Amino acid sequence: MFNFKIVSQSKTGKARAGILQTPHGEVQTPIFMPVGTLGSVKSLSPEELVNAGVQIILGNTYHLYLRPGCDVIKRFSGLHGFMHWDKPILTDSGGFQVFSLAKLTQIKEEGAEFQTHLDGSTHLLTPEKAIDIQVSLNSDIMMCLDQCIAYPSSYHDAKDALELTTRWSKRCKQTWEENADKNSGLFGIVQGGMFKELREISAEALMDLGFSGYAVGGLSVGEPKELLFEIADFTLDTLTDAAPKYVMGVGTPEDLVSLVEMGADMFDCVMPTRNARNGQVFTRNGTINISNAQFKDDSNPIDQDCGCYTCRYFSRAYLRHLYLSKELLAYRLNSIHNIWHYMEITRRVREAICDGTFEAFKKYFLNKTV
Amino acid sequence: MFNFKIVSQSKTGKARAGILQTPHGEVQTPIFMPVGTLGSVKSLSPEELVNAGVQIILGNTYHLYLRPGCDVIKRFSGLHGFMHWDKPILTDSGGFQVFSLAKLTQIKEEGAEFQTHLDGSTHLLTPEKAIDIQVSLNSDIMMCLDQCIAYPSSYHDAKDALELTTRWSKRCKQTWEENADKNSGLFGIVQGGMFKELREISAEALMDLGFSGYAVGGLSVGEPKELLFEIADFTLDTLTDAAPKYVMGVGTPEDLVSLVEMGADMFDCVMPTRNARNGQVFTRNGTINISNAQFKDDSNPIDQDCGCYTCRYFSRAYLRHLYLSKELLAYRLNSIHNIWHYMEITRRVREAICDGTFEAFKKYFLNKTV
Repeated sequence: MFNFKIVSQSKTGKARAGILQTPHGEVQTPIFMPVGTLGSVKSLSPEELVNAGVQIILGNTYHLYLRPGCDVIKRFSGLHGFMHWDKPILTDSGGFQVFSLAKLTQIKEEGAEFQTHLDGSTHLLTPEKAIDIQVSLNSDIMMCLDQCIAYPSSYHDAKDALELTTRWSKRCKQTWEENADKNSGLFGIVQGGMFKELREISAEALMDLGFSGYAVGGLSVGEPKELLFEIADFTLDTLTDAAPKYVMGVGTPEDLVSLVEMGADMFDCVMPTRNARNGQVFTRNGTINISNAQFKDDSNPIDQDCGCYTCRYFSRAYLRHLYLSKELLAYRLNSIHNIWHYMEITRRVREAICDGTFEAFKKYFLNKTV
Repeated sequence: MFNFKIVSQSKTGKARAGILQTPHGEVQTPIFMPVGTLGSVKSLSPEELVNAGVQIILGNTYHLYLRPGCDVIKRFSGLHGFMHWDKPILTDSGGFQVFSLAKLTQIKEEGAEFQTHLDGSTHLLTPEKAIDIQVSLNSDIMMCLDQCIAYPSSYHDAKDALELTTRWSKRCKQTWEENADKNSGLFGIVQGGMFKELREISAEALMDLGFSGYAVGGLSVGEPKELLFEIADFTLDTLTDAAPKYVMGVGTPEDLVSLVEMGADMFDCVMPTRNARNGQVFTRNGTINISNAQFKDDSNPIDQDCGCYTCRYFSRAYLRHLYLSKELLAYRLNSIHNIWHYMEITRRVREAICDGTFEAFKKYFLNKTV
């Protein structure tokens, strides 16, 4: 049965450590979820994810619906069997991709009509369909369809979008109740743009409907970092502490630590894997670009203190050589390191919360990496 | 100390099973060597190679000399440390790449002057330099610099090239004796185009000089398959049975079995990895292209009887989806399978030779896959 339990709470702030119970096992929060857009976390095997400490991954409903399609994944009883991943999966609703990837999108009461980025074919993504797709993926945590808006947007547009999101969320919940495994979770997504008043209205409306958890959507869409934090902090405060709080599409390791301090429990971002493929790797003292000439014959690992497979066996010089040679192994070794780095930070954050030392950890961490 | 010992010999033919002793351990022959052009077998980790049964890999001197350069690899005491591979490595001499990749190549008595395929800079690869590079790579088996020629070539051109190759081989041996680890091996490469008389002259001249092993070069350059076999068979017969015999740049699994029957012990080819990246995977009943629509929802592995990581955990449907989506994991999973397939064939060939059933195996194998 889907369940969220807080096991430790910072005495001086809002950071908390918890346990999410899902049909495919437990997740210790705060947690970072690597993004497996098309049924793989790019370049990595499931075993490599587990070795890096990954507990839950995110799958993209929009992408998987288009390729390979639900009929194929259904044959494998869902995404877990299809991709050989037996831990929890959270799937998004497709709302953000319809907003960011699809063409000629028309938002109607019924749903979002769009042309795909692949072949231009026209599809209608309704709240019911968004849930049905996620049911066929056998997702552990499903997300309600939301209408995402651009930054900046007018108060009027933000209000319309949040109200439609609320109505869609109600329809999602009904479909979920009718069709989904009752042990799965269904999260509502708070919209409202950069307007606190609208964020509060959205959060209240979703909590009235009642969901397994709540996400802060519509952030990381081009707004300044200070504004992201301001809206996230405000929105997280409006949400019940009894449920998991998920800040979508964010961010750097420093962002994660700051958002945990505001009470966030869950995160996803393409940053560790995308940056890895661009040669940017994380260290405890900030990021480095592995293609830099200074690493030409550097026999050190990316990060002296890192225990990942890449750092145990490979040098910066080798990684630089692979990257400059466009060898496929480069993307993989960099990704293993970056994912490990993100998971290590969430492990340390959780440990600090449980030890009652989160405030000190945060100061140390943010000073060290800035 | 480099050593080759025949442990089993077919009673009715020329196939033999042996053990190569190298500074980085033993290799059981007949053996296939995956190609690690730039210090990685494309997309695969060293552990994945070991799990697939790989005993020795090939590194390309031409590529590694240009990128990352010998100074970098020397800092890691050679290629093994640089790429985290502690089993044997054979390096080619660069001769074939100068012929096939470089531009404006001028063959002189001193060596091969060429412009690189990377930046057009001019380099002179002498026999001495080819060995010195391989010494800095700390190769277990080094190859003499040879002059490769196009197919078809005139008798005159083939004769000139083989004679130059002989003179270069003598200089290679001298440099190897002066500079290399005496436990490493040095192989001479038989040239002579498609002319048996010239092949025999080349082989005799190299055996007079004396090498640890002998390779058949200048094949797989566009000649018909029958001619390749005819020249390989003839050339292998001219070589002493006491030394390992290596047919370079060949071929399909069926080619390997046929060449083992002619007495060949070692092979290398980019086919398993290159084909994997093009979606072509090997099965015991021939090759399939994983992108084929018939595999859309096929829950079977590539090959029912295969024990590789890919076949144990992933379906044709999933592999097809990854491949069509251009996911990096596709190239890797296909490569794991194809390398396993090649290694499995060499394992079975060796077993059959040792069991005295090679003839029957060969008939069974070639009938099954044709």
